[in-house]
Amino acid sequence: MNLDAYLAVRRRAVDCALNRYLPKENVAPATIHKAMRYSLFAGGKRLRPILTLAAAEACGGKFAHALPLACAMECIHTYSLVHDDLPSMDNDDFRRGRPTCHKVFGNGIAILAGDALLTVAFEIAARAKPTRRYSMNDILREIAVAAGSRKLIAGQVADLEAEGKKVSREELRYIHENKTAAMITTSLRLGAMSANANEKQLRAITSFGRALGLAFQVIDDILDVTQTTEKLGKSAGKDLVAHKATYPAVIGLEASRAEARRLTSSARKAIADFDHRAEALRGLANFLLDREF
Amino acid sequence: MNLDAYLAVRRRAVDCALNRYLPKENVAPATIHKAMRYSLFAGGKRLRPILTLAAAEACGGKFAHALPLACAMECIHTYSLVHDDLPSMDNDDFRRGRPTCHKVFGNGIAILAGDALLTVAFEIAARAKPTRRYSMNDILREIAVAAGSRKLIAGQVADLEAEGKKVSREELRYIHENKTAAMITTSLRLGAMSANANEKQLRAITSFGRALGLAFQVIDDILDVTQTTEKLGKSAGKDLVAHKATYPAVIGLEASRAEARRLTSSARKAIADFDHRAEALRGLANFLLDREF
Repeated sequence: MNLDAYLAVRRRAVDCALNRYLPKENVAPATIHKAMRYSLFAGGKRLRPILTLAAAEACGGKFAHALPLACAMECIHTYSLVHDDLPSMDNDDFRRGRPTCHKVFGNGIAILAGDALLTVAFEIAARAKPTRRYSMNDILREIAVAAGSRKLIAGQVADLEAEGKKVSREELRYIHENKTAAMITTSLRLGAMSANANEKQLRAITSFGRALGLAFQVIDDILDVTQTTEKLGKSAGKDLVAHKATYPAVIGLEASRAEARRLTSSARKAIADFDHRAEALRGLANFLLDREF
Repeated sequence: MNLDAYLAVRRRAVDCALNRYLPKENVAPATIHKAMRYSLFAGGKRLRPILTLAAAEACGGKFAHALPLACAMECIHTYSLVHDDLPSMDNDDFRRGRPTCHKVFGNGIAILAGDALLTVAFEIAARAKPTRRYSMNDILREIAVAAGSRKLIAGQVADLEAEGKKVSREELRYIHENKTAAMITTSLRLGAMSANANEKQLRAITSFGRALGLAFQVIDDILDVTQTTEKLGKSAGKDLVAHKATYPAVIGLEASRAEARRLTSSARKAIADFDHRAEALRGLANFLLDREF
């Protein structure tokens, strides 16, 4: 399959849906809707929503049923970036090659824009349809737990608390599992749930997500060390300078590459029983691994 | 009816449920759960959740069905206070007589604690049961819209942008309607929805909420001018000093009092057709009006 074309089509569909779901820039108060859209339409890869759509496809579901959940996850991802970039958090001035939200709109509006993106995610999720196996309560709980204080926010807290300290491999794994892998796993699970996946399918998609999510973060850490600022669109080597917990810093570059390969292969194995409709998921796993070697 | 006893019983039930719904202080990462609980259990009056419970009662619903929605609204209310108090927003050092969340835990953790309280609200809402007339999608949308960028957050943005400027009566009403009245109205509507209220009941509860929500904020503004710091638990007169938009500043103290009385009477009229089960709602409206005259 042509993965580039696959990704481009889905990226456009997600962008188009997000544009429909979000209040327009001129809706009052315009400042907040400008700030939300500034960060949401900043050229993101839409990886998480595409994973939702691909998981739905792998389980025989309908694109339209997965789309609101896909978009909800992208809004949550963007909110977490807006808040992470704030001066009292990671203090980043650039993101995807552009000034961060608080550099453009100020800290107060950036906090509120993050809050509003998190909230609109749930408004968008309310467009989803429950299935025979999964109620709206199940879907709502799935999203709120992944974005909550024991997953996404737990990872961010552990990351904040690890700054400037020597971090063990286990602590690093905890950060990555919660800050990145949990949201990727839930993006995939929501796609499966929207497709009324059976228990075995959902279990396989969950294992795929855990391995892929960790692989993704290991690769992100490697990229930060090996690539230039221009290519990344954010300050390269910044994590090392800030003594942030990264895989290359903790286990070295070569061991990190081996770990990324191992995790990717383990992700692919988890969905070995799926038919051709899982080709996109398999391709995505390879694509993420290849993007920096 | 003995309103003090009524309020005390419900306040305890809400506190107890919140304690059950929230991760314990020692759940990892402990910092975030300590910060969430510090702000959530700071002696709040639990007005919004009590309104949810009272609206459910007025519509003949069950206490247990309204309780998760009541608690979800209190979490959202607390998150909004935590973020409002931040240095880049209202910059408040005290709230309910105690140092604010960011004074105790730092700005980074306070932002995350607010995020986590907003997120856990939706996790708690997932415990609610849909009724014949209201699906979980309806309930979810109701909460997300009230807390979103066209209501709660819109009010906060307008409030931020009004600071130091001369504000008209219409602009002030916009801030109050969105920042305060929308959340109070939705707290009441959720109670009615959990009770499977019919269209007429829901409409009456909505009108009650809009009038009561505005009355509440007018009275809050009056209190800020007329009461001492000790009694309020926050810095009295602070709104005037910061040239914040308040009713006494815009229309004067006596006209504000008349407006509060007018709104309270209009709230009571909206639910005139309800039977004795709405006694608590009627009592609450008077209680809010009386607390400062």
